[in-house]
Amino acid sequence: MAKEVTSRAENFSLWYNNLVTKADLAENSAVRGCMVIKPYGYALWENMQAALDKMFKDTGHVNAYFPLFIPKSFLAREAEHVEGFAKECAVVTHYRLRTTKDGKNVEVDPDAKLEEELIVRPTSETIIWNTYKNWIQSYRDLPLLCNQWANVVRWEMRTRLFLRTAEFLWQEGHTAHSTKQEAIEEAEKILGVYEDFARNHLAIPVITGVKTASERFAGAVDTYCIEALMQDGKALQAGTSHFLGQNFAKAFDVQFAGKDGSLDYVWATSWGVSTRLIGALIMAHSDDNGLILPPKVAPLHLVIVPLFKGEEELKTLMETCNRIKNELQDAGIKVKIDDRDNLRSGFKFAEHELKGVPLRLAFGPRDMQNGTVEIARRDTLTKETVPQEGIAVRVKDLLNEIQKNIYNKALKFREENTFKVDSYDDFKVQIEKGGFISAHWDGTAETETLIKEETKATIRCIPFDSDKEQGKCMVTGKASSQRVIFARSY
Amino acid sequence: MAKEVTSRAENFSLWYNNLVTKADLAENSAVRGCMVIKPYGYALWENMQAALDKMFKDTGHVNAYFPLFIPKSFLAREAEHVEGFAKECAVVTHYRLRTTKDGKNVEVDPDAKLEEELIVRPTSETIIWNTYKNWIQSYRDLPLLCNQWANVVRWEMRTRLFLRTAEFLWQEGHTAHSTKQEAIEEAEKILGVYEDFARNHLAIPVITGVKTASERFAGAVDTYCIEALMQDGKALQAGTSHFLGQNFAKAFDVQFAGKDGSLDYVWATSWGVSTRLIGALIMAHSDDNGLILPPKVAPLHLVIVPLFKGEEELKTLMETCNRIKNELQDAGIKVKIDDRDNLRSGFKFAEHELKGVPLRLAFGPRDMQNGTVEIARRDTLTKETVPQEGIAVRVKDLLNEIQKNIYNKALKFREENTFKVDSYDDFKVQIEKGGFISAHWDGTAETETLIKEETKATIRCIPFDSDKEQGKCMVTGKASSQRVIFARSY
Repeated sequence: MAKEVTSRAENFSLWYNNLVTKADLAENSAVRGCMVIKPYGYALWENMQAALDKMFKDTGHVNAYFPLFIPKSFLAREAEHVEGFAKECAVVTHYRLRTTKDGKNVEVDPDAKLEEELIVRPTSETIIWNTYKNWIQSYRDLPLLCNQWANVVRWEMRTRLFLRTAEFLWQEGHTAHSTKQEAIEEAEKILGVYEDFARNHLAIPVITGVKTASERFAGAVDTYCIEALMQDGKALQAGTSHFLGQNFAKAFDVQFAGKDGSLDYVWATSWGVSTRLIGALIMAHSDDNGLILPPKVAPLHLVIVPLFKGEEELKTLMETCNRIKNELQDAGIKVKIDDRDNLRSGFKFAEHELKGVPLRLAFGPRDMQNGTVEIARRDTLTKETVPQEGIAVRVKDLLNEIQKNIYNKALKFREENTFKVDSYDDFKVQIEKGGFISAHWDGTAETETLIKEETKATIRCIPFDSDKEQGKCMVTGKASSQRVIFARSY
Repeated sequence: MAKEVTSRAENFSLWYNNLVTKADLAENSAVRGCMVIKPYGYALWENMQAALDKMFKDTGHVNAYFPLFIPKSFLAREAEHVEGFAKECAVVTHYRLRTTKDGKNVEVDPDAKLEEELIVRPTSETIIWNTYKNWIQSYRDLPLLCNQWANVVRWEMRTRLFLRTAEFLWQEGHTAHSTKQEAIEEAEKILGVYEDFARNHLAIPVITGVKTASERFAGAVDTYCIEALMQDGKALQAGTSHFLGQNFAKAFDVQFAGKDGSLDYVWATSWGVSTRLIGALIMAHSDDNGLILPPKVAPLHLVIVPLFKGEEELKTLMETCNRIKNELQDAGIKVKIDDRDNLRSGFKFAEHELKGVPLRLAFGPRDMQNGTVEIARRDTLTKETVPQEGIAVRVKDLLNEIQKNIYNKALKFREENTFKVDSYDDFKVQIEKGGFISAHWDGTAETETLIKEETKATIRCIPFDSDKEQGKCMVTGKASSQRVIFARSY
């Protein structure tokens, strides 16, 4: 192997960290909890961004940009919101440094204290609703469908690359509507976009549903979510879409005049996904050899590795390599030739496997004679020798096949790791083994808390597509009208 | 007019502010000096970003993302850099808020003081070179060609939308090279990209050149720049590309092993353009009716305004409107139909003029009969009636013509407002009238400072393409080998 990676069985968490750093996706920075997203990891994010951005625009949304800073007092306006977000955050208190007396360093200038502290946004509802107040007067100004691509900061105590970092990148949509119904439909529509994106781009099958009151976004009436299952049996919340009711409109006094002239508070939604999705992508698909990336978001689809001894042989091979490269590029395939002369091809193969390049095309003197190439698939680790002729069509087909196979594998894994459980004893046994557990719950926060305290499992969501099956809460025996999904989670 | 705009002659500065806010580009936020970029302004930025990003990638650069925060001590590492950037900046001193005793508000938790303060990045050389230290060991790791799209914060005392804001959006490229020559070529190459972008996308003719020592980026060996002339005769620095020598490599101890195994410090460049370019775009082209936007970056190319009385007539017209819209969209033209029924068409016309939509297509019952449409150009305010047949080709041609015309107009303005001056007396007279002044200077900082103090003019650049003409400094009479460009500037 190019670089030693711990196996999943040995230590899943270390395996994850190994992949992130050794595949050059990201690394920890000199600033506690903040990551550097390296070019290969950022290319992945750019592909995800591009696909999502198109989906948002196709559903009528526009992008805008709101300030990085939020005046401290804004956070306190919405009572629940402040509880959820105003605690662990980066606080700007001063606006100037000065040179120290010895002239060798800089220090905070005590004379440059801000009258009101500024919070680096942990999420932007407050500053945005304070802005919307000036943008919305009448029903003609609605709906307002804005999205923002931005960085946010939450001062997490325990951080992990992509999964939980002090600073992360995300998109946050903030929409305003004239009716409750329309806002709910918007929140649902976006959840549909997220599900579609997770399924068809990230190849991750997700469960859609609604959060319980205790897992809800601080300030929301309802939080819809997509939940994914990782290979270690833990759940990962991959995206959320909130119906905010009139909470923020009331906190920031945003009213609109209806057709009949009567005033009412505006209805709102907010929704977001973040660089956390990269963590989900890794833990859903990858194996002990390295990353497995769905072609739809992979920074590179195929790498061509000429098999040569000496400069002379390389020269002979390069002409064909370049021809194939151009043919593939013309077909919209992202391709690179790895002609580094200081590394053995075995080393290169391992490196491209580590980085999850979906296809590898090896090409040596014998292939040259035979008019063939050897294609290796990253997802199945299988190889085949195929004619050079028609290579673009073959590669396109393979990429489609890989995209599907990765999804199907993840779906199979989820199905095999979703369990219907009817007794709390069985639940306690199963939760240790991991997976989604579908069980009856009496609908109370008390029972939910008890389960969480005793088993570390939370209700990931009340799924939208489950049968309305009558049953009894596995803990209290009280009536339940629907199974909910439990899991331990990231 | 849709919304009253002050004329340029009356008050250029107010005219600018009127355009920015009334054309819905941006507005001031509740946070001092920070702007909200509204959807229409952000769409402009997205178009600029897309074009630049492609140019960067076509020249071999990749994107990455580095932390928002910079440890205070990092800024002090490079002696000149700290002088330039460590003064007016946002300082994070705490990482937690707590609820006040009355339970009604939040306050900074004094127990949550950071050991070392964090600075919100004013530019990222220090954090990036601290990171590059781990990425660069040998010549095989070079060149390293990274760009970052990010927000930065500089605590400006006097702010103006887009031109000078506390927070702004930009791209910053940071490259590392094994030789001085290669780094200089990189800085020059990027200046070429900026010039090309300014000329061919923004339709702004720019002068390229090198800054004098006193106008140089803090920490650079040489700063190259593109300088644009605004309609009020003031210059605007539209982009800079810095050759940093080995300054940051030395400050952060970044050395590489050459082919022969010897260690040397890495050579560097950095370069950036920002949302300030939107300000340049406005002040270079727009008129008293509103924005004039080059089609290459305009969020919308053409708006179709059906001229109707009553719902019945609108219905009849809409079929043709939609057909034309689809035809134009298929040809890659960004088009919208303005069928608002609560506004007169005169009001709509003025609004689209204010927002700088390059083309307006009006269509009424008579056009319906005649198979024609009326096309109005925003840049010349001229109208013509043309057949509906072949409309897509006509519109494409017009958009190209408009792009060229806007550039030529700006070029003519610059040529008419660039003056060769040989005496300091003439200089003092001319500088009051504005424009670029090409004059001889003795090359000393003393003379430069004197001129700045007496006339508020700075040397915008020592232009690359000027004749090496012998002359005498207009102030001191000392020998000079080349004219330099003076102006008052933004």
